[in-house]
Amino acid sequence: VISVQQVTIGGPLPVVIAGPCAVESREQVLNIAQFVKSCGAQILRGGCFKPRTSPYSFQGLGLEGLHYLHEAGKKFDLPIITEVMSPEDVDVVAEYADILQIGSRNMQNFPLLKKVGTTRRPIMLKRGFMATIDEWLSSAEYILAMGNSQVILCERGIRTFESATRNTLDISAVAVIHERSHLPIIIDPSHASGNWRYIPQLAKAAIAVGAAGIMVEVHPSPKSALSDGPQALKYPTFRTLMENIAGIPYVMH
Amino acid sequence: VISVQQVTIGGPLPVVIAGPCAVESREQVLNIAQFVKSCGAQILRGGCFKPRTSPYSFQGLGLEGLHYLHEAGKKFDLPIITEVMSPEDVDVVAEYADILQIGSRNMQNFPLLKKVGTTRRPIMLKRGFMATIDEWLSSAEYILAMGNSQVILCERGIRTFESATRNTLDISAVAVIHERSHLPIIIDPSHASGNWRYIPQLAKAAIAVGAAGIMVEVHPSPKSALSDGPQALKYPTFRTLMENIAGIPYVMH
Amino acid sequence: VISVQQVTIGGPLPVVIAGPCAVESREQVLNIAQFVKSCGAQILRGGCFKPRTSPYSFQGLGLEGLHYLHEAGKKFDLPIITEVMSPEDVDVVAEYADILQIGSRNMQNFPLLKKVGTTRRPIMLKRGFMATIDEWLSSAEYILAMGNSQVILCERGIRTFESATRNTLDISAVAVIHERSHLPIIIDPSHASGNWRYIPQLAKAAIAVGAAGIMVEVHPSPKSALSDGPQALKYPTFRTLMENIAGIPYVMH
Amino acid sequence: VISVQQVTIGGPLPVVIAGPCAVESREQVLNIAQFVKSCGAQILRGGCFKPRTSPYSFQGLGLEGLHYLHEAGKKFDLPIITEVMSPEDVDVVAEYADILQIGSRNMQNFPLLKKVGTTRRPIMLKRGFMATIDEWLSSAEYILAMGNSQVILCERGIRTFESATRNTLDISAVAVIHERSHLPIIIDPSHASGNWRYIPQLAKAAIAVGAAGIMVEVHPSPKSALSDGPQALKYPTFRTLMENIAGIPYVMH
Repeated sequence: VISVQQVTIGGPLPVVIAGPCAVESREQVLNIAQFVKSCGAQILRGGCFKPRTSPYSFQGLGLEGLHYLHEAGKKFDLPIITEVMSPEDVDVVAEYADILQIGSRNMQNFPLLKKVGTTRRPIMLKRGFMATIDEWLSSAEYILAMGNSQVILCERGIRTFESATRNTLDISAVAVIHERSHLPIIIDPSHASGNWRYIPQLAKAAIAVGAAGIMVEVHPSPKSALSDGPQALKYPTFRTLMENIAGIPYVMH
Repeated sequence: VISVQQVTIGGPLPVVIAGPCAVESREQVLNIAQFVKSCGAQILRGGCFKPRTSPYSFQGLGLEGLHYLHEAGKKFDLPIITEVMSPEDVDVVAEYADILQIGSRNMQNFPLLKKVGTTRRPIMLKRGFMATIDEWLSSAEYILAMGNSQVILCERGIRTFESATRNTLDISAVAVIHERSHLPIIIDPSHASGNWRYIPQLAKAAIAVGAAGIMVEVHPSPKSALSDGPQALKYPTFRTLMENIAGIPYVMH
Repeated sequence: VISVQQVTIGGPLPVVIAGPCAVESREQVLNIAQFVKSCGAQILRGGCFKPRTSPYSFQGLGLEGLHYLHEAGKKFDLPIITEVMSPEDVDVVAEYADILQIGSRNMQNFPLLKKVGTTRRPIMLKRGFMATIDEWLSSAEYILAMGNSQVILCERGIRTFESATRNTLDISAVAVIHERSHLPIIIDPSHASGNWRYIPQLAKAAIAVGAAGIMVEVHPSPKSALSDGPQALKYPTFRTLMENIAGIPYVMH
Repeated sequence: VISVQQVTIGGPLPVVIAGPCAVESREQVLNIAQFVKSCGAQILRGGCFKPRTSPYSFQGLGLEGLHYLHEAGKKFDLPIITEVMSPEDVDVVAEYADILQIGSRNMQNFPLLKKVGTTRRPIMLKRGFMATIDEWLSSAEYILAMGNSQVILCERGIRTFESATRNTLDISAVAVIHERSHLPIIIDPSHASGNWRYIPQLAKAAIAVGAAGIMVEVHPSPKSALSDGPQALKYPTFRTLMENIAGIPYVMH
């Protein structure tokens, strides 16, 4: 069980982490924070340092974005989570972010894992989209071995031959992790599917299977989002999703 | 919506199909039928013609097994489903079975698809573990094109690099099928995971995601099962599973 | 070592099997047969019964096509190979074809494997595009167990996440088969790549790795081919390929 | 075409890069360097900073190992290549190594790619074992965009469902890269197969398909190797391999 301010991850209730894929402006993140808070989300997410396949894509606002995210979290009483990509950025990100995220592409970036293992912040370790569950747990071990026991796992889809979804959500991973580890596991249906239409159904499945929570991307205007628009939920869809998952019986593992 | 005797597939309530992987004896199938009926299962499954990777593995009881399954279904008022592997067996299997199953390895056995398309029985078309969703729907089209509109899809896991489970349950397929087709879709967590421990959690996820039902393997003594013992549920586990899924809010699509 | 008329498969020299994806007309197959023979190909291929993903695609000329293929083989002194999809077609196909092909989608069609195991013709067993090497050898065992020891394996690419090629040619399979089996193995770079541009390079790799031969699709006018045009070699490209592979040192395993 | 001292990569002749998986001692690397040089290898490889799945595995000798490798390269007139894992190590590694290697797990470690893009050393960018060819070229673009045009690609196998080999060598990638890029591409059959038995055949295929060269692991006593022993070639096998590939006709692309 991991506690961040007033929020408990891995406890008797599932948590919802929501926010934009990327922090795009101060106004954007304040607006989204207020909205997701009003719907019952407990943690605010937002990318500042963005790992992009192409060097010519929007790379995030960096430290400036982190300040906006920090401000939004303070204002609406939401712990914040953001990704850190480079060992040299860890200290500054750990200063402002309540939870540090290691992205899928960095799941086996061992110098980075060691570095975040020296901080006192909880670390959300996303599964590499090419990583077996055992490799994922070995990567968690890098963080644990440095003395940081606050590791949260996040399943976000694996790469398969199927192309109807961007990745294939490996929902069985939740059951396997419950058997092999005591770490809490979150599901990210946004990256798993890459398509907002499928997210409400997958979110319900995530709660039913016993995940410790979900992380979803929300944007007031997905079409104008600077990254991953097709997988962002519009406000009304997110609100409905929050209502629906509230009714699903949840069993803590 | 497909009706088989008193059972509706694709209606406002999810259905549960249960039974042994293989029909092993008259006593075995009668015993299992009585038990799953008492727990609320609506359809009885049992393999008679078994597709086995090796020619030296148990190949099923064939027609004899089908007679036992038929008797058990009649006795306990359960429609029965069994797999048919060869075009020349279709007529006799269609005489006794209420639903004909096309197995994963035969999803693109086109002569077989055409032949079952000429029967008046509902067909459960399992997804090939190597097939995209679009290929699966094209295979359904082979049956539909022959005039049989009663096709039930069954997601049973796809092959990926992950080896913690026998296959990877592609739960997103339910959402994709809801978008692309009007055919009902069932989830088979037994073959998807290959491990009875994971089945209760996956069954709950299947109901929450909106599948039209689940199909699970049940055996009084999995260790002595002639095939797929590791994925068979013991009686108490199945009973608990039935109780748990009853509480999950279900939305028909 | 398998002998078909004057051709030896698995001997000191690699063999080349060439011809159209599908037999489209008498003229077409006679024309192609003459051309590939003039370039040094030893066996003529041509599809008569075509397994197509969609029921609305061209399904082949069937028995009529087989007669054309048979005539072309006789006229140009080339043994012929064609696919058989249904147990009930096996006898008639075995009457006319020198080698029977089991296609990728039927690698685990066990009734079909058993049936071809009763013929006296060599069987080319293509690897399922999602089958492990061990499953492939188990399928070969179905044919061998029925008394037909003349099994030729054919690697034709496996399904992976990479989409630059239609499938991923698993060239290592040749080395693995050499270690685990005495059966000869052929490589089909046409289906593996799905793109004629890559075939000449892959054909050279196939000879160098020690495959017993290659099978390639050739068409005088790929753009008007009724199936798989993008992977068919035009005449000049095939001629150059035949010249190039002649210079590669070959080691029989 | 990339030149490193007297060696040309991407020229009319394929190059051979050989050496131990990990530098284990001064004596070990001097011994191996002398041997591979005597067989005709042109570049010496050796891991100093080792990315290991588990934090409890041997992590390499680090800078000490790099000094040994550097000494061996100087003594036997072989340019050296070694992996760099962390942006902060790039400067010191670039001081001693002639070529910097980005490992498979770091193919999308964008801060690292940007950093090596600022050096004046050639960079060997290994393909992520779950990366598409287009993602791989996008990662190369990160290096090129920083002003370093000396990028060498290295195909080392992709992750698939097949387990007979550690990874699946995607030999078609060479043909695809020849079509889509002007960068030279090397094949690493050691990591692709994970089994020394298959390496000689795959090395021949690599030359025949037109790769700019191969990179293989060599160890005098694989059983006592500190990492990846099962894929290391013993001295006699490497010598035979060098003789065999010399006879394969090579076409520069």
